[in-house]
Amino acid sequence: MNFSFSQLKMFFVFALLSIAFSNSQTSAGYDLWLGNSEIREPTILLEYQNFTNSIFFSGGNSILLNAQKELVKGLKAILGRESDVQDFPNLLNTMWVAKKDGLNQELQSALKGNFEQIGKEGFIIKSVSVDGKNILLISANEDIGILYGVFKFLQLMKMQKSLDEINLIEAPKIDLRMLNHWDNLDRTIERGYAGFSLWNWQKLPEYKDPRYEDYARANASIGINATALTNVNANALVLTSAYLEKVAALADVFRPYGIKVYLTARFSAPMEIGGLNTADPLDKDVIEWWNNKVTEVYKYIPDFGGFLVKANSEGQPGPQNYGRTHVDGANMLATALKPFDGLVIWRAFVYSETDATDRAKQAFTEFVPYDGNFLDNVLVQVKNGPIDFQPREPFHPMFGAMPNTPLVMEFQITQEYLGFSSHLVFLPKLYEEVLYAETYKKGKNATVAKVIDGSLYNNKISGMAGVANIGTDLNWTGHPFAQANWYGYGRLAWNPYLSSETIAEEWLRLTYTNDSAFVEPIKAMMTVSREAVVNYMTPLGLHHLMDTGHHYGPGPWVSDLSRPEWNPTYYHKADKDGIGFDRTPSGSNATSQYAPEIAKIFNAPETCPEEYLLWFHHLPWDYKLKNGVILWDAIALKYQEGVEQVEEMISIWDQAKKYITYDQYNEVRMLMEIQLKEAKWWRNACLLYFQTFSGREFPPGMELPAENLEYYKSLKFPYAPGN
Amino acid sequence: MNFSFSQLKMFFVFALLSIAFSNSQTSAGYDLWLGNSEIREPTILLEYQNFTNSIFFSGGNSILLNAQKELVKGLKAILGRESDVQDFPNLLNTMWVAKKDGLNQELQSALKGNFEQIGKEGFIIKSVSVDGKNILLISANEDIGILYGVFKFLQLMKMQKSLDEINLIEAPKIDLRMLNHWDNLDRTIERGYAGFSLWNWQKLPEYKDPRYEDYARANASIGINATALTNVNANALVLTSAYLEKVAALADVFRPYGIKVYLTARFSAPMEIGGLNTADPLDKDVIEWWNNKVTEVYKYIPDFGGFLVKANSEGQPGPQNYGRTHVDGANMLATALKPFDGLVIWRAFVYSETDATDRAKQAFTEFVPYDGNFLDNVLVQVKNGPIDFQPREPFHPMFGAMPNTPLVMEFQITQEYLGFSSHLVFLPKLYEEVLYAETYKKGKNATVAKVIDGSLYNNKISGMAGVANIGTDLNWTGHPFAQANWYGYGRLAWNPYLSSETIAEEWLRLTYTNDSAFVEPIKAMMTVSREAVVNYMTPLGLHHLMDTGHHYGPGPWVSDLSRPEWNPTYYHKADKDGIGFDRTPSGSNATSQYAPEIAKIFNAPETCPEEYLLWFHHLPWDYKLKNGVILWDAIALKYQEGVEQVEEMISIWDQAKKYITYDQYNEVRMLMEIQLKEAKWWRNACLLYFQTFSGREFPPGMELPAENLEYYKSLKFPYAPGN
Repeated sequence: MNFSFSQLKMFFVFALLSIAFSNSQTSAGYDLWLGNSEIREPTILLEYQNFTNSIFFSGGNSILLNAQKELVKGLKAILGRESDVQDFPNLLNTMWVAKKDGLNQELQSALKGNFEQIGKEGFIIKSVSVDGKNILLISANEDIGILYGVFKFLQLMKMQKSLDEINLIEAPKIDLRMLNHWDNLDRTIERGYAGFSLWNWQKLPEYKDPRYEDYARANASIGINATALTNVNANALVLTSAYLEKVAALADVFRPYGIKVYLTARFSAPMEIGGLNTADPLDKDVIEWWNNKVTEVYKYIPDFGGFLVKANSEGQPGPQNYGRTHVDGANMLATALKPFDGLVIWRAFVYSETDATDRAKQAFTEFVPYDGNFLDNVLVQVKNGPIDFQPREPFHPMFGAMPNTPLVMEFQITQEYLGFSSHLVFLPKLYEEVLYAETYKKGKNATVAKVIDGSLYNNKISGMAGVANIGTDLNWTGHPFAQANWYGYGRLAWNPYLSSETIAEEWLRLTYTNDSAFVEPIKAMMTVSREAVVNYMTPLGLHHLMDTGHHYGPGPWVSDLSRPEWNPTYYHKADKDGIGFDRTPSGSNATSQYAPEIAKIFNAPETCPEEYLLWFHHLPWDYKLKNGVILWDAIALKYQEGVEQVEEMISIWDQAKKYITYDQYNEVRMLMEIQLKEAKWWRNACLLYFQTFSGREFPPGMELPAENLEYYKSLKFPYAPGN
Repeated sequence: MNFSFSQLKMFFVFALLSIAFSNSQTSAGYDLWLGNSEIREPTILLEYQNFTNSIFFSGGNSILLNAQKELVKGLKAILGRESDVQDFPNLLNTMWVAKKDGLNQELQSALKGNFEQIGKEGFIIKSVSVDGKNILLISANEDIGILYGVFKFLQLMKMQKSLDEINLIEAPKIDLRMLNHWDNLDRTIERGYAGFSLWNWQKLPEYKDPRYEDYARANASIGINATALTNVNANALVLTSAYLEKVAALADVFRPYGIKVYLTARFSAPMEIGGLNTADPLDKDVIEWWNNKVTEVYKYIPDFGGFLVKANSEGQPGPQNYGRTHVDGANMLATALKPFDGLVIWRAFVYSETDATDRAKQAFTEFVPYDGNFLDNVLVQVKNGPIDFQPREPFHPMFGAMPNTPLVMEFQITQEYLGFSSHLVFLPKLYEEVLYAETYKKGKNATVAKVIDGSLYNNKISGMAGVANIGTDLNWTGHPFAQANWYGYGRLAWNPYLSSETIAEEWLRLTYTNDSAFVEPIKAMMTVSREAVVNYMTPLGLHHLMDTGHHYGPGPWVSDLSRPEWNPTYYHKADKDGIGFDRTPSGSNATSQYAPEIAKIFNAPETCPEEYLLWFHHLPWDYKLKNGVILWDAIALKYQEGVEQVEEMISIWDQAKKYITYDQYNEVRMLMEIQLKEAKWWRNACLLYFQTFSGREFPPGMELPAENLEYYKSLKFPYAPGN
C-alpha cells in the first residue's frame, strides 16, 4: 500500500469531515443515549482493542442476530475498526459471546452459581480463564440476556469503564418493564408533547417505518420489555381485525428486541365492535365474546402480552356500569387470557364524582378490600401518588397495603404537570423519592421499591409502567433532556435501587461526553431541576393548581368545573384564614391510609416534612415554619427560589457550552428561555391569586409580578398540545 | 507527518466507516435532494478540484453568509476537502463569487447584458477571463441571486456536469414561487399525509426547531421564495399578537433564505378576534380594523408577504355574506396591504350549493366578469383544473380568460386524491400536462405556462402555488418519491417550461446516484406512474370517485351527501344507458368556457382526447373507442392496465435494488405493496359498482375482483389521515 502525502492528507480531511457530519446528524438527538461513542483515553482504547481482537459469537435466532449486529456496530463506532467475529471458537479468541448451553462443561460448572442468579433475562460479563488464557465472556441463560449483556458491555465501554477483571452479574429486579403509550388511533397523543404518535396506523401493516426498529432498539438497550401501544382512554377499534394485523406488524418488529406488545381494552368493546347489548362481565355472551377475541388476538400475535385496562374512571366504561366490581371485570379478562399466558393490568386510578370523600382516599378505599381476590395473572397498576402525577406527591398509600396483589408502579414520563417538553426536569429524582419511601407496612425498610419488585411480599410477578414521553419529534422526546427521563425510567424499572445521580451520570456520558468538566456540573443541574419545578409550580405540598383541560400553566383560580375534584380550588382551599388541604384526622383523614408510623409523622405540622405540609394541612398565613418564616412569605420565597434555580440552571448550561456542539447547546438554551418565562408566569399568577386571600405584601427578595392577576387569568391556550 | 501502516489502516477504516454512517443516516431521507454528493468520475472530480482551488467569496449579510456556508459545506461533501475561501480576490483565485457591485468595471461591462437579463433573483455562472486567466464566476444583482447561484453550482457538480466553458444565465420566470401549507394551529394538516405540521406553535417564538432552517434551505435550493404557513380554511387566531410573534420567529429563520411568509386571513377575523359585529368589507370599522391589523403584522414581520384568502367557499366566510363581491373583499385587504407592498392572493376555488349549474363552470362564471376590477396587488389563485385536484382534469378555463388579472396557478403537491403518501406518483408529469396545454385564448401557442408566467398578457406580477406535502415525517414527505414532487414543483415554479423528464433525472441524480443504470429505468418508472394512478383510479376522464371526507379509496356509490356536488354520482352519472358527464352544449355546456378552437375539439366524442372522454361526454356502455373496443370493456381494461403498471413499477424497482442501499430500496418497496393493494381495491370496487349499471361481463384480460361489491362498500376508515 502506497500513499502520497496529498492522498493521505485527503483521507485525513475526509475522516475529519465525516466525523463532523456524523456529529451534525447526531446533534438532532435521534441517536439518543446510543449516540456518543467517543473514547478519549488512549490506554482505555488499547485495553478495549485487546479485549475485542477476536470474538467468538455463538449465533442463533433473531434476538441473537440483533445482539451480534449491535456488537459489531458498537465496536466499529468505539474502536474505529471492523471486528473479527467468528461463528466457532478458536485459540485466538479474546472474547466469547455465548449462551450457557454454548459453553463447555468446565465453564458451565464454574459459572453455575452465576447462571442460577440471572434468571431468564440477566447476563454475565466476566473475565474468565479458558485453557490458561483470559477471555472476556458475555453469557446468559436465554437469548434476551445476551442482547442485554451486549448493550451493557457497549455502554460500559462508552463510559470508559475498565473491563480488566470485570465480574458483572446482572438481572432485572422487576419482571414487567413497560411503557404505556397514551396514543390515539388518529395519532394524537393524550399528554404527548413530542409531536405525534409513532404508530402510523394508516400505512401498517405493509409499511414498517424504520423508526419502529430504532424505538425497539433504544428500549432494549435499557431493558424495557413491554409496550402498551394505545391510550388507556381506549378505543375498541384497535381490537378489530383491521387493526390487529397492524398491531401484529409492530409486534414482529419488536419481538427480536425482546419486547412484548400490550393493548388497552375498552371494557365496552363487546357492544361497540361486537354487536352485543351489554358488556356485563358476568354475562355469558360477553364472556364468550372476550374469549373469542383473545383467541383471535393470539392468532395475530402469538406472544401478545395482555390488556391494560382503565375502567370506571373518568368516564371510561367498566364493570360497575353493570353493578359488578373491578374484581369481576379483571378476572373475566384474566380468564380469557390465562390459556395464552396473557396478563391483565388493571388500573387503580379511580375516583368518583359521586363520592364526596377526599379524592386522594378513593383508590385505596375501593381497591384494598379486594386484596387476594384477583386471579394470579392480574396486576393492579397504581400511580406513584394518590392524586395524579403532580410535581410532588407523597407515595400512594396502596403501596404495601395489598400483600396478595402484585402492584405495578405507574410513573409518568411525559411531563403533563411538569412543563410539557419545554422544561428541563430530571424525573428519576422524583421516581427515586417514591421508590425509597418507607411504607412501614411490614416494619422498617419496607420501601415502595420492595413492594414493586415483589420482594416484600414474595409476589410471583412484578411490574413497573412509565407513561411514555415519546413522539415523532426528531429527538423523540421534544426536549433533549427528556431523553434522560425515558432512559432513567428504564434503568429504574431494571433496578429500582439505583440512585438518580448514577443515572444522570450514565446518561450524560452516553449522550454527550465523558468529560467530567461537563458531566459534573450538568449532573448537579439535573439533580436540582426537579426541586426547581416543585418550587415554581407547587411548593410546600401544594398541588393540582394547573389550568383546565390542557394543564398548561397556572390556573389556581379555576373553580367552575362540573366535577368538584377537578377544580384547583378543591386542592389548595385557600381562604382568608390560610391555605392547604387538611388530610389529618381533623380533616379528610387520608393519613389513616398510611401505616401508623407514617400517619403520625404526617399528622402533626411540626413533624410533617415541609415538602408535604400543605398536602396534609390547612395552615394560617402567618403559621411559622421551622426557619421562622411565616407561611405566606415562605410560599412566596419558594416560588422565587424556583425561578432563581432556573436562572442558575441556565448559567450552568452556558458555562458548559464549550464541551458540546453549538447545536446541542443552543437547542437546550432556547428551551430554557421558555422554562424561565413560564417559571415566572407560575410564580406571578399563583402568588397574585393567593394574595387575594392572604392580603399580605410580597416579602423582600421576591421579584414583583410583571402583570396583574386579571392578565394572567385572561390567558387562553386553545391549541396547547396533548389535550 | 509520519504514519505507521496500522495507523494508516485505521484511518482508512475510519473513513469508510464514517461514510457508511453518513449513508445510513441519509437513507432516512432527511437530506432530501441535498444528500447525494458522491462523484464517481475521476476526471470530473479533478476538473472540480481545479476550479475550486482558491475561491474569492464577497461576503455580506445573512443571505450571503448562508450562500458561503452552502458552498463550503457542499464542496467539502463533493471533494472531500476543505476549500480555500478568501474575503478578498487574489491572483491565485480560480473562482469568484460576488455580486455585480463587487466585480471590477471591466467584468461589469463585459457582463452588462447578462446582468440586465437576470433581474433581482437570477444569477450568472460563467467561465470568464480575468487578466488572461480563466475564472469560474458566480454573480448576481442581488444577494438572493448569489444563494440561488451557489445552489445551482453545487447541483451541477453533484450531477457531474462539466463546468468547463460554462455559461449559464438563469432567472426565474415566475415571481412568486410559493408553498401553501394547509396546516392548522393544532398541528394537524388538512390533506397532510407526512405526519403533522412542522410549525410547533407551542414552543415558538423562543424555540426555533432546527428543522425550520432545514426546511428553508431545501426550499431555497429550488428557488421557492414564499410560504403561506396556515390552512386556507383559516383560523383568525393566527392574526392575534400571541401568534404573530411566533410567525415573526419563523420569518426570521426563513428570511436569510430569501423566503417571505404569508398567512391565510379569515374574512370574519374582525368579528372573531376584533370584537366587531360585522366583517362587511365596506364597513368603515372593518376597514379600520384591517388597516390596524396589517400595520401590526408589519411591526412583527417587516417583509411580510401578504394574505392568502379562501372566501365564500365551502363554508368559509367572505364578502358575499354581506352582499358584497370578491372584488370588494380582495380590494379592501389590498388597500390595507398596499403601503407595505403586501399582496392579496384571492382564491377562485368557489362553487355554491345553491347554484344548480355544473360545478366545473362556477368559478369561471363568477370571476371572469371581474377581470380588470382588482387592485394591482391582488392575484387570483386558480386550481389547475375546474373541479379539484383530480388525478386528471382538463386545464381550468379561467387560464387565459382574464388578461388583466395575474392568475396564480395552484397545484396540489400533497396527494389528496392520488393515494396519499403511499402511492408513488410523479406529479411533475401532471403539472407539465397542464402548463403545456394550449388555451387558444390569444391564438396558438397561448399555453397555460404563458398565462402563469405573465408573458401572454404582460402581467406585472406572476405566481405559482403548491399545496405542500411536507410534514414531520423523518423524510419530510412520507413517501421518499414524494420528495420529487416537492422538488419538481419548485423547479416548475422557477421555469414552467422544463420537462418532467429533466426534473426526474435531476432529482434522481441529486437524491440517489448518478449511475445511469439506475437513473434511466427509474426515470421511466416515474414517468409512467402518473398515468398508472389515472388508470387505476379514474380512467378515461372519470373523476371525483373517492370516498367521502377523508378521500381515501373508492366510493363511486356515494350519493347521500347534503350537497349534490359532493357526491361521486354527480360526476360519473352512471346509469343503464352509459356513463360520463355531458359538458357539451347538449349538457352543461362547460366547454363553452374554453376558446372555440378547444371547445370544438372537446365537444365531439370523436375528437375529444380519450383521456377526457367521460369528463365531457355521457356515452353508452357499448360506445366504440378508436381502437374498436366498447366503452365498458375499455374502462375495465384501463383499470386493469393501471394495476399492471404498478406491478411493472415494482418489477423495475426490484431490478434497481443493487444500485442503492437496502434501506433505500426497502422503504419504497414496502410502500409499493400498499400501492398495489390499493390499485386493485380501486379497480375492483369501481368496476363492480359500474357493472351494476352496465350489466355486462368483465372483458378477458381483467383479473376478477377478490371480493363482492358489498364488501368494498362496507369498508370504513374513521382515522384516515388528513381529514
